[in-house]
Amino acid sequence: MQTLWEHRFAGRVNAMTSSAIREILKLTAKPDIISFAGGLPSPDVFPVEEFQKACDLVLSETGKQALQYATTEGYLPLREMVARHTSRYGIKVSPDNIVITSGSQQALDLIGKIFINPGDRILVEEPTYLGALQAWNGYGAQYVTVPTDDDGMRLDELEKALRIGPKFIYVLPNFQNPTGRTMSLERRHKLVELADHYGVPIVEDDPYGQLRYDGEHLPPVVVLDAKFHENGEEHYTGNVLYTSTFSKTLAPGLRLAWLIAPPAVLERFVHAKQGSDLHTSSFNQMVAYEVARGGFLDKHIKTIRETYKTRRDLMLKGADEHLPAGVEWTRPEGGLFLWVTLPEHCDCKEVLEDAVEQKVAFVPGNPFYPLGGGENTFRLNFSNASHEQLETGMQRLGQVLQKHVGQLEKA
Amino acid sequence: MQTLWEHRFAGRVNAMTSSAIREILKLTAKPDIISFAGGLPSPDVFPVEEFQKACDLVLSETGKQALQYATTEGYLPLREMVARHTSRYGIKVSPDNIVITSGSQQALDLIGKIFINPGDRILVEEPTYLGALQAWNGYGAQYVTVPTDDDGMRLDELEKALRIGPKFIYVLPNFQNPTGRTMSLERRHKLVELADHYGVPIVEDDPYGQLRYDGEHLPPVVVLDAKFHENGEEHYTGNVLYTSTFSKTLAPGLRLAWLIAPPAVLERFVHAKQGSDLHTSSFNQMVAYEVARGGFLDKHIKTIRETYKTRRDLMLKGADEHLPAGVEWTRPEGGLFLWVTLPEHCDCKEVLEDAVEQKVAFVPGNPFYPLGGGENTFRLNFSNASHEQLETGMQRLGQVLQKHVGQLEKA
Repeated sequence: MQTLWEHRFAGRVNAMTSSAIREILKLTAKPDIISFAGGLPSPDVFPVEEFQKACDLVLSETGKQALQYATTEGYLPLREMVARHTSRYGIKVSPDNIVITSGSQQALDLIGKIFINPGDRILVEEPTYLGALQAWNGYGAQYVTVPTDDDGMRLDELEKALRIGPKFIYVLPNFQNPTGRTMSLERRHKLVELADHYGVPIVEDDPYGQLRYDGEHLPPVVVLDAKFHENGEEHYTGNVLYTSTFSKTLAPGLRLAWLIAPPAVLERFVHAKQGSDLHTSSFNQMVAYEVARGGFLDKHIKTIRETYKTRRDLMLKGADEHLPAGVEWTRPEGGLFLWVTLPEHCDCKEVLEDAVEQKVAFVPGNPFYPLGGGENTFRLNFSNASHEQLETGMQRLGQVLQKHVGQLEKA
Repeated sequence: MQTLWEHRFAGRVNAMTSSAIREILKLTAKPDIISFAGGLPSPDVFPVEEFQKACDLVLSETGKQALQYATTEGYLPLREMVARHTSRYGIKVSPDNIVITSGSQQALDLIGKIFINPGDRILVEEPTYLGALQAWNGYGAQYVTVPTDDDGMRLDELEKALRIGPKFIYVLPNFQNPTGRTMSLERRHKLVELADHYGVPIVEDDPYGQLRYDGEHLPPVVVLDAKFHENGEEHYTGNVLYTSTFSKTLAPGLRLAWLIAPPAVLERFVHAKQGSDLHTSSFNQMVAYEVARGGFLDKHIKTIRETYKTRRDLMLKGADEHLPAGVEWTRPEGGLFLWVTLPEHCDCKEVLEDAVEQKVAFVPGNPFYPLGGGENTFRLNFSNASHEQLETGMQRLGQVLQKHVGQLEKA
């Protein structure tokens, strides 16, 4: 039975793209399936005991403050810690540049809320993070895509796309979701230069920046941009909005992330966030601060790196051993994902059906392409699988692909 | 220095109304001021020890689940508890009708996100809850206001406003924020009947429904509406979206509330929420469930009622004793607020300046009027003040008003 509400949905809301993935994830949640489909951190590295101690401390010493309403900007000691922590990665910011958000999904949502008019074109990597598309579809965003290779966005295509006049550029330079690719230093410089030249600002999404397992750390785009806008001020006033999260380094169940913006823009975020959820849980912010402080976060990130590096290596080893000729995959230096490309004309939705029968699962690549495409690609997650699951799962996947890629070559 | 972002704000974003109140609250946060300005629950009734026990239990028994990503709909045991709990207030719903939100502010934001096109008119009580205006201004909402008296919305004015063709009606029937007024049963029935007649759906915001100190509980609008749409189904499929919260009964710092909607509409909320923040903190949901279960919430609500009833009575006693002739105020049967009306032509912003000098504070009423007005009104909060503060504060307020109302009569 329809109610009066069904006739009243806002016009700007695009068709929802979330259902496909949600249905797949439900399918793969069965206990006997080895699922590389999700994007979850491993609960093996959640610092549960530290959380217990922190909850106890926060509640016994500052319980009344932790359970009360708080300011929209976020808990000041946590913002100060974020400022210190990110400055070590070369991002010189003050707490005035930082708002704590309810996950970086909220940072993306607030960006949509504040900046996107229906029909505005957003320049994104192809493929790009699905969550950003979900956030911005609700504001009527359109997309301009820039194809990527192993060094990130292709610069010739980027310049072409910039001439279309996008509202902003969205980029995940480190171990991108979904591809695991990292943008090269040269291209980062060039991205900032071109964005400056065309007067288009940048959103930098960096959830995995601290999870590098090989190679050299590369400066975030926000750092390179600051060079172009150095003006002696103590806070950041450049053209990049930068977001990162505690979801991959502490725990996603807290819903804690942060956004860095020039103060005048940050003020809009604070107003918009006030309208969205008043503030992020004060209790969680205080608990996360207690867990992270005193050097624990740094130590803990090292543990996570070691754990995930081994898992990535096992997945790569499995791929090398079991995936048939004609199949390509990325070799990410960090993050949570591998990206697999089958011969053209392979349909990964069909492959998935077979894979689920063989008790292994992945996420088809197509939903990460905002303008369609990528039917012959899929994403594999290695962070949330045991060593045994990685070995057995890649073996099973190899058998499934053998059949599909083999069939295709015969055809 | 301006960045590229400042030129790119979305057109639909109305002038922000939050700054005024934010500035006032900063002003009144000084320790020697007795502030009746906020809308905070009293930390004296936060069940801190129960939270400690619950955190410990949740982390030691289900820590890995509590710290991991979770479904957007919310923690099923909590949704089941909400369904049981609200059914006792006559709202017969299944968990399929319920999404857990990050405070009811997020429920309001999602309503805006899903339903409001720029220029859509929303029918609201005059005055109405400022947080709803803040949520919906960001989606380009316009407002149609219906004046209120001691029984809530005036029905003659409501019918006139409905003929304008609003997108939906927004109403806080119980101990409204800001006025503390309660809509009479007769008017609730008539509201549902008129809304049905004109085909306009209703948003019912009920944060304080359980905090009644005198008089009889009145059925929420969602219950009355269900009579018009009874169709034998087990879940609710009427024309009212209903939201309530744990902020006033457990603790606001958790950011936990819920929205009740027909399943087909709820699905849209789940999609929209996924784009907004993926899900509400799984840890907080599990902790709140542990605290609330086994009858604690009911017992605790009784404690809160007793505490707040005494404070309300003290504030009313203070008003009776100290406020001068020509000043009127509401006598709320529940909730957190009293509403004061001065003689016309009094400007409560000026009164506030004097009041702050005399070390007492309130929130001027004007920001609660979406179309302007209410300069001679203000809101008083009694829940977050000690007995001594209530007595001394009302005394000080009386002196300030004496001067302003007296001056006016002389003029």
